[in-house]
Amino acid sequence: VIVGVFGVGAIGGSIALRARQNGTRVFGYDSDSSALEAAKGCGAIDEAMDPDELRERADVLVIAAHLAPALAEIARLKSAGGRMPAVVTDVASVKVPVAQAARGLENFVAGHPMAGTERSGVTAARPDLFEGRTWAYVPSGDAQLDERACDFISSLGATPLAVSAEEHDRIVAITSHVPQVVAYCYARLLTDTEGAEQLYGPVARELLRIAKMDPTMWRDILAANSVNVVRDLRSLAAELEKAGSDLKRVQ
Amino acid sequence: VIVGVFGVGAIGGSIALRARQNGTRVFGYDSDSSALEAAKGCGAIDEAMDPDELRERADVLVIAAHLAPALAEIARLKSAGGRMPAVVTDVASVKVPVAQAARGLENFVAGHPMAGTERSGVTAARPDLFEGRTWAYVPSGDAQLDERACDFISSLGATPLAVSAEEHDRIVAITSHVPQVVAYCYARLLTDTEGAEQLYGPVARELLRIAKMDPTMWRDILAANSVNVVRDLRSLAAELEKAGSDLKRVQ
Repeated sequence: VIVGVFGVGAIGGSIALRARQNGTRVFGYDSDSSALEAAKGCGAIDEAMDPDELRERADVLVIAAHLAPALAEIARLKSAGGRMPAVVTDVASVKVPVAQAARGLENFVAGHPMAGTERSGVTAARPDLFEGRTWAYVPSGDAQLDERACDFISSLGATPLAVSAEEHDRIVAITSHVPQVVAYCYARLLTDTEGAEQLYGPVARELLRIAKMDPTMWRDILAANSVNVVRDLRSLAAELEKAGSDLKRVQ
Repeated sequence: VIVGVFGVGAIGGSIALRARQNGTRVFGYDSDSSALEAAKGCGAIDEAMDPDELRERADVLVIAAHLAPALAEIARLKSAGGRMPAVVTDVASVKVPVAQAARGLENFVAGHPMAGTERSGVTAARPDLFEGRTWAYVPSGDAQLDERACDFISSLGATPLAVSAEEHDRIVAITSHVPQVVAYCYARLLTDTEGAEQLYGPVARELLRIAKMDPTMWRDILAANSVNVVRDLRSLAAELEKAGSDLKRVQ
């Protein structure tokens, strides 16, 4: 078995490290040539290749790029023709646009590991990043293909969970996307509070940790799921407003 | 040296365990006799005593109760007269009402360890709970008394930080109290989202963890710091609303 990883950042690098730990050969590509070299240098991948070589040679091809380049690679694969890996999957945080873009792409199963790190790049990769975590996938309608995808997910230590693209995006809006917005907003308020650094509680530390995540990456994710995120953000803002009014009454 | 702990819950129990680990004798009291027995049973305290015996015999007396019973004990100590420990301190999350109540109480230095657990009771106590954490205290104006209080705080593994009661309450409103309200509000929204359990991100997990904390205890804390908390809650709600509007524009 050969695993091809398109994008060797923190997620792609973690997939690569774990696959290699399993004794699998891993080929990698990254649009950033220094990132690709770093991945080869630290042993995350066996060989660097271009995207078409990955498609020609991998049995499992993982598009582990941010949303916009992942969508572009999916479009490129659709028009590439030729031999296709037995499984093509991705790791993007929003699944409706991916499922739409991939319609008609052979052997594609959309995926999303519920794991991450606030750091980016292959130096943030860990082979145990997915251990015990849920890895959502969107059933393709082809049971054998789905089984191959699930076997791959399980081989990385994660637990596959079948969910439709629409359900996925509705759910992660509240479980992951709204907390990210809260983190950015909260971090801004905290920065304005003089002397706060030494009196952080545990949630403050966690929110500040994820507020360090790449805002460009998150802007794309939030925009791609904006209907769900806006709805849940407004619900949370309304709940906070209500809590404030309830508290004001006790003053 | 004898440490007296008034209230042997998770915080008082952790203080007791660490003090005993340091070789210090620890006497304890709790209004809940079964909690007091449990503290004795698990070796957190050497002996159970009533509040007046603690005052008579302890060198350091820590009022480790929730806000309301802590204020009541401070009032009781003020009118008790007689011998007073060399340091009397507390651990409540709000300092202005404590400082007001303790005005005129001999040897009192208000304190607040920036550490906690979502679980309660002595079974949640850990001797290393304060290790490396900040422990805020309100300088009393008596340098020798403050030094004794700081020595005690340091002996528990924490780092003392001098802060006025007003500054403390202004800062913890955003670093600790607002996150707690966010956790309660967020947990409510999440409960309303079908199928969310398996797709939690790291912040969702942290918010749900602290949303399990005793709402009665927190209602008292939030009410006692409501001016600061309401101000910061409304700022956060407004930021979330604004983020929602910005996102809506990209739809």
